[in-house]
Amino acid sequence: MEGPPAQAPSPRGLAYGVAASQVLGLAVITMTGAWLGQYRGGLAWASAELQFNVHPLCMVLGMVFLQGDALLVYRVFRNESKRSTKVLHGLLHALALIVALVGLVAVFQSHRKKGIQDMYSLHSWCGMAAFAFYFVQWLLGVCLFLFPGASFALRSKYKPQHVFLGGFLLTLSIATALLGILELLLFRIKESYDSFAPEGVLANVLGLLLVAFGAVVGYVLTREEWKRPPMAEETALSMDFKHLAEEGSPR
Amino acid sequence: MEGPPAQAPSPRGLAYGVAASQVLGLAVITMTGAWLGQYRGGLAWASAELQFNVHPLCMVLGMVFLQGDALLVYRVFRNESKRSTKVLHGLLHALALIVALVGLVAVFQSHRKKGIQDMYSLHSWCGMAAFAFYFVQWLLGVCLFLFPGASFALRSKYKPQHVFLGGFLLTLSIATALLGILELLLFRIKESYDSFAPEGVLANVLGLLLVAFGAVVGYVLTREEWKRPPMAEETALSMDFKHLAEEGSPR
Repeated sequence: MEGPPAQAPSPRGLAYGVAASQVLGLAVITMTGAWLGQYRGGLAWASAELQFNVHPLCMVLGMVFLQGDALLVYRVFRNESKRSTKVLHGLLHALALIVALVGLVAVFQSHRKKGIQDMYSLHSWCGMAAFAFYFVQWLLGVCLFLFPGASFALRSKYKPQHVFLGGFLLTLSIATALLGILELLLFRIKESYDSFAPEGVLANVLGLLLVAFGAVVGYVLTREEWKRPPMAEETALSMDFKHLAEEGSPR
Repeated sequence: MEGPPAQAPSPRGLAYGVAASQVLGLAVITMTGAWLGQYRGGLAWASAELQFNVHPLCMVLGMVFLQGDALLVYRVFRNESKRSTKVLHGLLHALALIVALVGLVAVFQSHRKKGIQDMYSLHSWCGMAAFAFYFVQWLLGVCLFLFPGASFALRSKYKPQHVFLGGFLLTLSIATALLGILELLLFRIKESYDSFAPEGVLANVLGLLLVAFGAVVGYVLTREEWKRPPMAEETALSMDFKHLAEEGSPR
């Protein structure tokens, strides 16, 4: 009964799934940067035109890549304590929210400088809904799962809703990114889009990569054998406070 | 031991979830029809302009509503035999594919008549990917799950992939519908969209209803307690042929 607890081996295939998601995620960020740098003049906060470009990059980084990675931590860190994994999950989502907020400020300021109307397009409606629900979901998650106080019964009741809403919000965020790509193309290169202009093809491929990122993250999250073993989870959950209390005492 | 087998009661809440999905699905179809009728001149196969309008209506009916309902049959028909539920699932998907095919013919013919380039936009790339994978998934499903011949081991191995791909394809179809709405608005009412023209607001609300339909169907499908009891499922699966053989004999 001495020594560290036995480490459950990582299921076969999970590492490949996670690796594929990271390759796709980094490809999406690189390609967004390449699009904005190569065809849209790059980024500059002070310029009305180039401040807009901060928006797509931040939204893809925050609402897609970081949000997706925050969902994956429970699959990647299978043998860490439940509490540290939870804290990492919450921190990654917080970082995602901050990056996304910068992206939102960028688009609203750029619109104001250029006299463009806000919040009229389907992209903006979906995006604002995704961001608002994402923030509420994060707040509820912190209050119910990280702070003590919420009863075990309440946590158990809310957890499946939290998990479902998490997957839904990543999906809605990716759909919003696709809408943003199409909107930008139809505003900037409407005349050459239908003759397969390189910028249009690049942005379409970026859209497909976003879909692929969502598909791989979704696959990793929903595959039954790849979930954190419920046994360890339950034990960790009920032992959370015991564990915390013991941490300060000598072994 | 006589009499019909005990009927497992339907879980609390499932009926409301399914009802909500149907109300949203019918609202989506009605609203698409209202948009096309009120603002886009209605439908007419013989006219190049109005033939196009067959496309959004058929795609929403086939790739969203019927596809979604086909996924729900395993939650709705909990006490029917596995085989009849499977046949209904396959038939609804077949109907969805046929309706979607009519919608595809409509847009390609309308483009040809008007000299518009095909398959250049992100909407068309996502849509064609969704339709092609949907058709392949249907073919594989019929071959492996409806026709005898596939081994039990192969079926068990393929089933989780089939289920995941099914959810993914409904999601991709809804995202494609959102892209289609935005594309149509930016082609037809770009000038008045940013002053909240009624047509733009109507189409945006339609987009949010599509998202809500996807969310409710996704919730019903992923809720653990609402799944068909695995016990009945397994029994039905292994007794499938026995049951079929017995059906002809007197009780």
